[in-house]
Amino acid sequence: MNKPTIKHALPVTREEDFAQWYQAVIAEAELAEESGVRGCMVIKPWGYGIWERIQKLMDEQIKAAGVENCYFPLFIPLSYFAKEADHVEGFAKEMAVVTHHRLIADPKGGLVPDPEAKLEEPLVVRPTSETVIGAAMARWVQSWRDLPLLTNQWANVVRWEMRTRMFLRTSEFLWQEGHTAHADEADAMAETLRALEMYRAFAEGPLALPVIAGPKPENERFPGAVATYSIEAMMQDGKALQAGTSHYLGTGFAEAAGIRYQDKEGQQTLCHTTSWGVSTRMIGGVIMTHGDDDGLRTPPQVAPQQIVILPMLRDNDGDAALLAYCETLRAELAKLSAFGERVRVLLDKRPGKATQKRWAWVKKGVPLILEIGGRDAEGGQVSVLRRDRLWNDAGKANFTGMAQGEFVAMASAELEDIERSLYTEARARRDAQIERGVSDLAGLSTYFAEDRKFPGWVEMQWSRPTGAALDRVVEQLKALKLTIRNTPLDAAPVDGTCPFTGEPAVERILVARAY
Amino acid sequence: MNKPTIKHALPVTREEDFAQWYQAVIAEAELAEESGVRGCMVIKPWGYGIWERIQKLMDEQIKAAGVENCYFPLFIPLSYFAKEADHVEGFAKEMAVVTHHRLIADPKGGLVPDPEAKLEEPLVVRPTSETVIGAAMARWVQSWRDLPLLTNQWANVVRWEMRTRMFLRTSEFLWQEGHTAHADEADAMAETLRALEMYRAFAEGPLALPVIAGPKPENERFPGAVATYSIEAMMQDGKALQAGTSHYLGTGFAEAAGIRYQDKEGQQTLCHTTSWGVSTRMIGGVIMTHGDDDGLRTPPQVAPQQIVILPMLRDNDGDAALLAYCETLRAELAKLSAFGERVRVLLDKRPGKATQKRWAWVKKGVPLILEIGGRDAEGGQVSVLRRDRLWNDAGKANFTGMAQGEFVAMASAELEDIERSLYTEARARRDAQIERGVSDLAGLSTYFAEDRKFPGWVEMQWSRPTGAALDRVVEQLKALKLTIRNTPLDAAPVDGTCPFTGEPAVERILVARAY
Repeated sequence: MNKPTIKHALPVTREEDFAQWYQAVIAEAELAEESGVRGCMVIKPWGYGIWERIQKLMDEQIKAAGVENCYFPLFIPLSYFAKEADHVEGFAKEMAVVTHHRLIADPKGGLVPDPEAKLEEPLVVRPTSETVIGAAMARWVQSWRDLPLLTNQWANVVRWEMRTRMFLRTSEFLWQEGHTAHADEADAMAETLRALEMYRAFAEGPLALPVIAGPKPENERFPGAVATYSIEAMMQDGKALQAGTSHYLGTGFAEAAGIRYQDKEGQQTLCHTTSWGVSTRMIGGVIMTHGDDDGLRTPPQVAPQQIVILPMLRDNDGDAALLAYCETLRAELAKLSAFGERVRVLLDKRPGKATQKRWAWVKKGVPLILEIGGRDAEGGQVSVLRRDRLWNDAGKANFTGMAQGEFVAMASAELEDIERSLYTEARARRDAQIERGVSDLAGLSTYFAEDRKFPGWVEMQWSRPTGAALDRVVEQLKALKLTIRNTPLDAAPVDGTCPFTGEPAVERILVARAY
Repeated sequence: MNKPTIKHALPVTREEDFAQWYQAVIAEAELAEESGVRGCMVIKPWGYGIWERIQKLMDEQIKAAGVENCYFPLFIPLSYFAKEADHVEGFAKEMAVVTHHRLIADPKGGLVPDPEAKLEEPLVVRPTSETVIGAAMARWVQSWRDLPLLTNQWANVVRWEMRTRMFLRTSEFLWQEGHTAHADEADAMAETLRALEMYRAFAEGPLALPVIAGPKPENERFPGAVATYSIEAMMQDGKALQAGTSHYLGTGFAEAAGIRYQDKEGQQTLCHTTSWGVSTRMIGGVIMTHGDDDGLRTPPQVAPQQIVILPMLRDNDGDAALLAYCETLRAELAKLSAFGERVRVLLDKRPGKATQKRWAWVKKGVPLILEIGGRDAEGGQVSVLRRDRLWNDAGKANFTGMAQGEFVAMASAELEDIERSLYTEARARRDAQIERGVSDLAGLSTYFAEDRKFPGWVEMQWSRPTGAALDRVVEQLKALKLTIRNTPLDAAPVDGTCPFTGEPAVERILVARAY
């Protein structure tokens, strides 16, 4: 039998051009668009709705861990940054700087910054808030009784990026940043790993993104950190996306800001601090993991709407009965719970052809679409389309007809099954694309050869070189456009030597191209 | 009988120094503090928790009105602003301007903005987003079918203030800004008034703030607006606080940004736009309306915790049974609903003396405090303190003992009663301080005489002068440190002449000192 030709909803497929496909999903699903302001995007209702869902679910986890939300200033005086040398060096190249606080009319026309209103000390628009939060922590921490101090903020940050890509790398982005202070290294490290595990579970749950968690090598650490851990997800083009990070900062930031406590013996002691964050970048990861040639497939827990009901209106007398049937169905579904929350269901009564509206929702990736015609209403039926199983073997939209009651009884389980399905599919794809048979640089070079379209990741062992020896490895990998993603926490044991240094291997690393 | 002398919890009373008292509430209730960054504050967990509650409740209202949340850029190119002359003139004096996107080492030490990384066009940190959202609307609106376009964002904005005051006037503040586009004036005006009514109901409900809603006079309009409406609340020192505004913007912003639609006849037509916002300023209004000499009294719907249970721990064997009793009580209370939501209850198990902890919660204004001692636990009793009725006639903390079951049965109603009580008290105070017997400038001068401590507001009639005639009125009022707050929508009819112009009066205005 010939495979039927399917006319997909997007103008370009993943296979044809992955980068263009990514832009097409964002446009067609109405997630975001370029704003006209360099490097900044406008997040549109469906994209922002996904972020609101991420915020709600993540915020519950953060609060459950005893972390309290605060809000700290957008602007950071330059002198705050300068106190931590590695930190400022890491960010100096990409900081937006406020130098004036007033505009005046330009004799040549238009407005210019008023030279009379130049700031004595320039202010940096926060690229991250360790320094300004550290200054607050220094005020708040006095005694061991004040520890641990657990804070978080939901905020916008700015890193001036030369090459931007919506959701993945924008000059302004939205995130949460947790910042904590502890009495000792053990407690701070436990918090670092707690946040990492929170991110792993969040990615693998509500986002249905399989991820690998582990420490990053020295050269990939957050500027000023003693240890950086990440969760890494594999996109459909085989590249890695760092989807969240958690940092153990040692005492360096505490020293710079003066975060000290009186310990039980009465000694003034430096705190150990941590920071951890996830951002709107996660939405890019969801797109490149779950998207297909018909648009986004939004994981049900983060979908702004989980079920959309589309009445097939005919602009005639039958519409009233059809709408009444749909409204009753909507009310029934809105009473259901899935994932421990009320099901989100929308009755889309807007004018327009039902098939056009169907494809708009398919592209947005709403998990379940119900199309209801006049005869369905009369017969108490519904036509159900699962977004993750869009096409049948005949190349048609894969609708299943069933009694309304039957659908209501199964809808919650169906939503939960869609999440599981998306995860299982992504997990199988990723696992099949982790190559463990490469043991040296030549092997890497072959595996990541130019003509290989979507290579995956290589897991290999190494001796964890540092300093100049690490620099040489990084250079060799860079020549192949590769980076070390992290050291998986649950990797198999090592055996033999490091292909880069010839010394005994001590751990496994993931080598990949990355976003 | 002598009135007992009460030792209040704050270092300064309202009567002694209202401005210092305000700062004391903010400090002692741990709402916020100065950040060290000029004009910017740090919002601490209890203050941010109140903002999170405001956000949640207001966001539900916004979504229920069909308005969709988006996110727009923090930075606005100067040229966007320049298109609307009144608008840019209104904000030019207080805009933070980004001029560079990189720092480099200064030969003299430290870091400086890199002259090589100067922006071709300076970027303004948004003081409000009409211009950048207008640019998006111009892309999104094509036909009459796209209207109304209803958007909102929750964001930080920056207005460089010379004299700042926490929550009331800070260089950076948090708010929501609704922006909508409509086919005609009638529809846009209806939306302007819908938002105003949403704010009025929100202030008078969850915030328990009596407010007066109405249009502002011409000289007090938002820069570029055709009409500005406000809700005005009276603080305990008699001053007015503008707690929310809603603007009908006419077609000026639509013309500047090019927001046009094809109407049903095929004509390109300018949209009529609106904008409306409330901010963290509302928290300042809550403090100055409901605070007393013992700290804040937080209205129950916006209190991060509504009931706090304080076990009177004794560091002995009895503590385990006491804690078990308290935990059972907590779980019972957490099952209750008030205001249509689950009750928020905290069992404060931290070490420390119960009375010290009690006063910390009193200052934060948690609506209900339960103190539980060992004997209470044995006898199934609780001791209840209503924050809004803190002192009894003997000048002692006004605890009421009752059976646990009795308290559980009444707790929801008690919370709802506290909100009502706070509103009633504030309403009675305000109504008593609106003076309607002043009919001319001399009367105003007498009413607002220097030696009068907390004057209220004067409601008087006028002829609604414009242009130079209005300027003269504004100058006369300014000499008395007075402003016109608004024209109450539900004021009594007028009769006679305007004391400023001698012309026939057409409406009533509120004249007051203001924050």
